[in-house]
Amino acid sequence: VIDKVISHLEGNLDSYTERLFDLLRIPSISTDPEHAADMEQAAQWLQRVFAACGVKSEIVPTAGHPCVLADTGPTSEQTPTVLVYGHYDVQPVGDESLWDSPAFEPTMREGLIYARGAADDKGQLLAHVLAVEAWRQAVGELPVRVKFLLEGEEEIGSAHLGDVLRERVDQLACDYVAISDTAMFDARTPAITYGTKGMVYKEIVLHGPKHDVHSGAFGGTIANPGNTLASIIAQLHDEQNRVTIPGFYDAVRPLTPEERAAMKELAFDEEEYRASLGVPALEGEEGYTTLERQWARPTLDVNGLYGGFTGTGGSTIIPARAAAKVSMRIVPDQDPEAISAAFDRAVEALTPPGVRLEIKQHAAAHSYLCPLDSAGIRAASAALELGFGKQPVFIRSGGTLPILALFKQELGADSLLMGFCTPDCNAHGPNEFLALGGFQRGIRMAAHFVDRLAQTQ
Amino acid sequence: VIDKVISHLEGNLDSYTERLFDLLRIPSISTDPEHAADMEQAAQWLQRVFAACGVKSEIVPTAGHPCVLADTGPTSEQTPTVLVYGHYDVQPVGDESLWDSPAFEPTMREGLIYARGAADDKGQLLAHVLAVEAWRQAVGELPVRVKFLLEGEEEIGSAHLGDVLRERVDQLACDYVAISDTAMFDARTPAITYGTKGMVYKEIVLHGPKHDVHSGAFGGTIANPGNTLASIIAQLHDEQNRVTIPGFYDAVRPLTPEERAAMKELAFDEEEYRASLGVPALEGEEGYTTLERQWARPTLDVNGLYGGFTGTGGSTIIPARAAAKVSMRIVPDQDPEAISAAFDRAVEALTPPGVRLEIKQHAAAHSYLCPLDSAGIRAASAALELGFGKQPVFIRSGGTLPILALFKQELGADSLLMGFCTPDCNAHGPNEFLALGGFQRGIRMAAHFVDRLAQTQ
Repeated sequence: VIDKVISHLEGNLDSYTERLFDLLRIPSISTDPEHAADMEQAAQWLQRVFAACGVKSEIVPTAGHPCVLADTGPTSEQTPTVLVYGHYDVQPVGDESLWDSPAFEPTMREGLIYARGAADDKGQLLAHVLAVEAWRQAVGELPVRVKFLLEGEEEIGSAHLGDVLRERVDQLACDYVAISDTAMFDARTPAITYGTKGMVYKEIVLHGPKHDVHSGAFGGTIANPGNTLASIIAQLHDEQNRVTIPGFYDAVRPLTPEERAAMKELAFDEEEYRASLGVPALEGEEGYTTLERQWARPTLDVNGLYGGFTGTGGSTIIPARAAAKVSMRIVPDQDPEAISAAFDRAVEALTPPGVRLEIKQHAAAHSYLCPLDSAGIRAASAALELGFGKQPVFIRSGGTLPILALFKQELGADSLLMGFCTPDCNAHGPNEFLALGGFQRGIRMAAHFVDRLAQTQ
Repeated sequence: VIDKVISHLEGNLDSYTERLFDLLRIPSISTDPEHAADMEQAAQWLQRVFAACGVKSEIVPTAGHPCVLADTGPTSEQTPTVLVYGHYDVQPVGDESLWDSPAFEPTMREGLIYARGAADDKGQLLAHVLAVEAWRQAVGELPVRVKFLLEGEEEIGSAHLGDVLRERVDQLACDYVAISDTAMFDARTPAITYGTKGMVYKEIVLHGPKHDVHSGAFGGTIANPGNTLASIIAQLHDEQNRVTIPGFYDAVRPLTPEERAAMKELAFDEEEYRASLGVPALEGEEGYTTLERQWARPTLDVNGLYGGFTGTGGSTIIPARAAAKVSMRIVPDQDPEAISAAFDRAVEALTPPGVRLEIKQHAAAHSYLCPLDSAGIRAASAALELGFGKQPVFIRSGGTLPILALFKQELGADSLLMGFCTPDCNAHGPNEFLALGGFQRGIRMAAHFVDRLAQTQ
């Protein structure tokens, strides 16, 4: 049976690429209110694909952007149900001048598909949709029940996904959640990501004089919001690159000796990593390797800075305000609410009397760790090996999938992270890409996964 | 004779306002290459005013924006020659949304003329031009020779003024330079500013990864240019708000006990000052009063910050670069070149290996102190008293007039700073204004100055 499915999809690879390009052309940027209509269009595009292969689907409105739900229906035999999760929203474009081709005009160069969302997550979610289409068109009934939950708010913190899960808890009931929104270990080695970081995303705004004032007339007599912001941010780390927020590390679960040993065994080249990023040297928390810092240690990063005069040349003002977007990646068992409160307290304590502090919060999400001894993990592992021709490695990720803890809480299901973009895919940056070969292997993998899940115990 | 001049100008006050509005409508922003044609237009506008009252003038091109020179010619009696200096270029508009009326559409509200350049310096330079026009129209010959040097690069550091002074040293020869580009002590008390600060204006650009990268995938493993920039800026001050750059204070001339006593005698209300700026508290270098900090202590201020994601909401990136515009106001006898080099060395020393540092320089200028025992100072003082109905106080300024040291060096002349905008005039910020009454009193003062300079020894 699986041979018929694979053979069917081999014959349709060109059409799959065309359809991915269609989806990538829709600028579904969830953070920007101006793109609300594009969000709607992307959801409808997905619903039409399900309709065309006879899979029941619906667009579920939320207080934000809608979700697309689909369901292949009950199977004749007693087999597991899997819920495939993906997100059709994408990050903003950022500095357009840094893109070699327009972000929403997908372009193939040397076997790579360049477009915002190619890797994160349109190409990856579409692989699962197309695999189900192939099963439906080649065989008819699927050996397991496959449900889909495709949301439009992943890049802005999945604020309304919890509402949908709670309202549709029976409809979405499943044994496993399957998600392709992570990276392979390297371009040839597939991976199952068993842990992700959580996040707390803040914006610190410091208000000084009621408007920009002359830096000669007033300099040295009032707190400068720009200097003060720098001072606050600087004090959030110590000389060992540890975060200084009181209590920040209290709940951090230490890496086990086994985990540290497994990480050391992975073929990770620090010099190659450094060169690929174009930085003069690697830097991070003392006492940990780069992989440990990336996968298992909490971090605090400035994501953006603004304030005062930023045009050509010089303007001699003290800015009325200065601000920083600052996000923390947290790890098991740090609690986002506790970290959020500790951050606010620390920043308040660091703020001198000469400025007024405002703190905004943009996102908060839990970290996640998946148990490795399950039929789902075994099926995912087998499918990855069949799709990519190599046994997967088990890794963790510094990225955040805010919904993993939510699935566990609301549906009681663990998430199988079987992503297949490459680690250098430029997600969130300019020139995001997905390899065409990776996309096609991902579709095969997703088709095998359905087959294996029916057989693996 | 002076009565005829004053009577003539009293009859022309309305036309003077209209002509100021005409000049203010020209967006002569020197820092922005897009406004090159506006710079030319402003210079020509001034030349037409001189031509209309029979004063010889010319537009002198430079490698940057042109200067307007004018000369009333030799006098029949042996009297001093004064060179009136002003600048027709203005600061950028900044955030347009903070202006209550457009920056280049002069608007009168409650007796105040709002426009970019109203105070700094178009309204003030025009007062001297119109006073000379009044002398020419009412009397014919002036009792002293008045020359004009009106430049277009003051707001960008007067880079080519030195060339003009050196090329035209005989043509510009004078006993005093008279400049109205400073503020009164308060709205009713005129002032002679006998000291100004110098400036060194830098831009620190930190380069990290070759493009913005995902803060989850890479956070904690590389130096974040935003955090690193904050750390560098923060370390440029200590806990006492002193600048930490090695050698920074070495050449600072301490305030004399007499100066400190004179400053204490001035009616300066710190609470009113704080409230007018809208800041929760005043802050500055320990051990000095607000006036001492403003007039006589060197400072270091962030003028602008940029880097990473600054749009609506949150984007989880590590920025490829982060930058700060940072300017220092220096005092006698700090040398701009020495301070510039010390700044660069300090910032280089503070830069960790994980980022690449780039430092740009936008401006450098000397501070200035004027001797108070001269016929010029006495004439200026008398003219201010006649124009404003109150004896002037002697003050210093935190602002920078890069050309004062240059005049001393190239022409051997000291500068009489008899500015008459108010300290709250919003120069360099939104809603810059000049009081209509101040403008008119300034014209009278300038007319009296010509008269007094001929009589005072």
